[in-house]
Amino acid sequence: MSTRATTDRPGKRRLVIDCHGHYTTAPAPLGEYRERQKEALKKDPSHVGEKGVVAITDDEIRESLETSQLRLQRERGTDLTIFSPRASWMEHHVGNEHTSRFWTEHTNELIHRVTQLYPESFAGACALPQSPGTSVQASVAELERCVTQLGFVGCNLNLDPSGGRFDSPPLGDRYWYPLYEKMVELDVPAMIHVSGSCNPAFHTTGSYYLSADTTAFMQLMQSKVTSDFPTIKFIVPHGGGAVPYHWGRFRGLADMLKLPPLDELLLGNVYFDTCVYHQAGIDLLLRVIPHENVLFASEMLGAVRGIDPETGHHFDDTRRYVDASVLSEEAKDDVFEGNARRVFSRLEAGPTPAPPPRDLRRKR
Amino acid sequence: MSTRATTDRPGKRRLVIDCHGHYTTAPAPLGEYRERQKEALKKDPSHVGEKGVVAITDDEIRESLETSQLRLQRERGTDLTIFSPRASWMEHHVGNEHTSRFWTEHTNELIHRVTQLYPESFAGACALPQSPGTSVQASVAELERCVTQLGFVGCNLNLDPSGGRFDSPPLGDRYWYPLYEKMVELDVPAMIHVSGSCNPAFHTTGSYYLSADTTAFMQLMQSKVTSDFPTIKFIVPHGGGAVPYHWGRFRGLADMLKLPPLDELLLGNVYFDTCVYHQAGIDLLLRVIPHENVLFASEMLGAVRGIDPETGHHFDDTRRYVDASVLSEEAKDDVFEGNARRVFSRLEAGPTPAPPPRDLRRKR
Repeated sequence: MSTRATTDRPGKRRLVIDCHGHYTTAPAPLGEYRERQKEALKKDPSHVGEKGVVAITDDEIRESLETSQLRLQRERGTDLTIFSPRASWMEHHVGNEHTSRFWTEHTNELIHRVTQLYPESFAGACALPQSPGTSVQASVAELERCVTQLGFVGCNLNLDPSGGRFDSPPLGDRYWYPLYEKMVELDVPAMIHVSGSCNPAFHTTGSYYLSADTTAFMQLMQSKVTSDFPTIKFIVPHGGGAVPYHWGRFRGLADMLKLPPLDELLLGNVYFDTCVYHQAGIDLLLRVIPHENVLFASEMLGAVRGIDPETGHHFDDTRRYVDASVLSEEAKDDVFEGNARRVFSRLEAGPTPAPPPRDLRRKR
Repeated sequence: MSTRATTDRPGKRRLVIDCHGHYTTAPAPLGEYRERQKEALKKDPSHVGEKGVVAITDDEIRESLETSQLRLQRERGTDLTIFSPRASWMEHHVGNEHTSRFWTEHTNELIHRVTQLYPESFAGACALPQSPGTSVQASVAELERCVTQLGFVGCNLNLDPSGGRFDSPPLGDRYWYPLYEKMVELDVPAMIHVSGSCNPAFHTTGSYYLSADTTAFMQLMQSKVTSDFPTIKFIVPHGGGAVPYHWGRFRGLADMLKLPPLDELLLGNVYFDTCVYHQAGIDLLLRVIPHENVLFASEMLGAVRGIDPETGHHFDDTRRYVDASVLSEEAKDDVFEGNARRVFSRLEAGPTPAPPPRDLRRKR
């Protein structure tokens, strides 16, 4: 992990850390595994089965990344991506707790292999084996495994594992507290990120993600989470949903609800990423949210992959927008690197453990 | 309605039309009626009952408005409010279709009385008697009654009458088409506005409204509504939820979904209001959305009633933000008046019918 250390040298250029990337280009055997799970569930919704194997070679992983994320990292001048399983594929609503556990473990282990193959380009954030109506204990265990054994630096927490019914306890409910305790103990942040929508009212990346982001912030606002866990860290992705655009509304609601001002209540613990795909949006974000609370991210290759005819560049090439913003160079250092290092504090811990546990390595 | 006509005179100052106000200060007997409905439903969820009366005097109406909306209109220099029943109180999820019909009729008739008492200050927009799982025909009938008999100029359409489960057919579903046909026939717009949340995941004015706004836009984007009804008009309130802030995302999604560009697909039919409670948000809105698609609104007295300590003015005094924006005076004329006159075309039809039908007048 040489590049991670080099930024401490005076005069060295900043590192650009993208805090939000998913493995959307995973080799086909992962999808085939998922299809087999779904087939078994069709026959028996309470199917348990066994974890089984996902047969993917290192070369297949390399190829899936060299042609996509790694190529774009080079083209766009980003260095390190906090990498997690494909969000829309977490699909916590599918099957039962066993389905979710086996699937999530496989997707996390694949991320681990990516971080082993490219330790300078990727650090791991894990999905959690959530399942509607079940305890959060399986997620606590998987978080611990991923951080302590696989060297992960964060996790993705789904506030609506139902996939669009929003029927889980709000984030302030004590249901979630065992997970928060583990996050604090391990000093890892959670990005609050839903998965694919199975509700026809919601388009996954168009309305569901943004609605969930907005809802997450409001749930935290109404909760005691930041006072009960003063060092906990959350990232609200996609630029915070609707929140920065409606920052006046949320400040006013805090006032009406007799809460402390938002900067006091939440900004010691809550961060927004820069997955906002046009200059005006990024400018708004950086105008209203203190730059210390903004983490660079692009979510490539993610929801929006095309080229903006108005600019000639990819919509999700968010580095351009931050570069073109009015932030000072020092503030940009924070957004591109410093803030991510604070939030993902385990990045500083050095290389992820190697060799990986034997059963995580695939040979062919 | 003398002031409505005066703007056609050269040199006359523009009228300021606030396209989004709810009767949040209705006199107590309205709430008492609602409580009686709920009591009856507790005993029998399929309770039908009868419409009954809501005994409110003209003086009670005057007092409820003189001390609040009318006072603020004067203080803030707005002239005419498109006024509809309190949004969070539509509560289409309560009871059954009869509950909803009786309640909605009463709330609309109260709005009608307001427009009769203050024809220069208020024009009516009706709530619709929606009820989950029932046909949209009752809404079609009430819309027709309110427009043709009570002189209303618009309506509020709830895309999620469940109050937070988002389990209704999306706006592109033919379920809604009879209502769209009536809107087009009468040439009235619908503001797409949900009611109170009964889902603990959502805070009504903090996350539910904004999520629903965002969802409404995406549902329209994925639908054939604007091609099937080329003259239909929708207003997405609260500044369009998350949409303008994520305009790049939505433009990119249109591209990925092989849809026409958004201005071509939707901006002939979809408008955003200015219920965004800080300067940076309004500036973003006016930067990315053509000003022809923005309608002035404040939703006072609504979700956020306090004073912003950063400005010393009310959060929802949105006129200040539009005044302070970079728009030209001509563009401000459009946002404050001209666009609303185009969208609420029946405003031009002159005074609402008088006298009102006898059974709508209350004497005491």
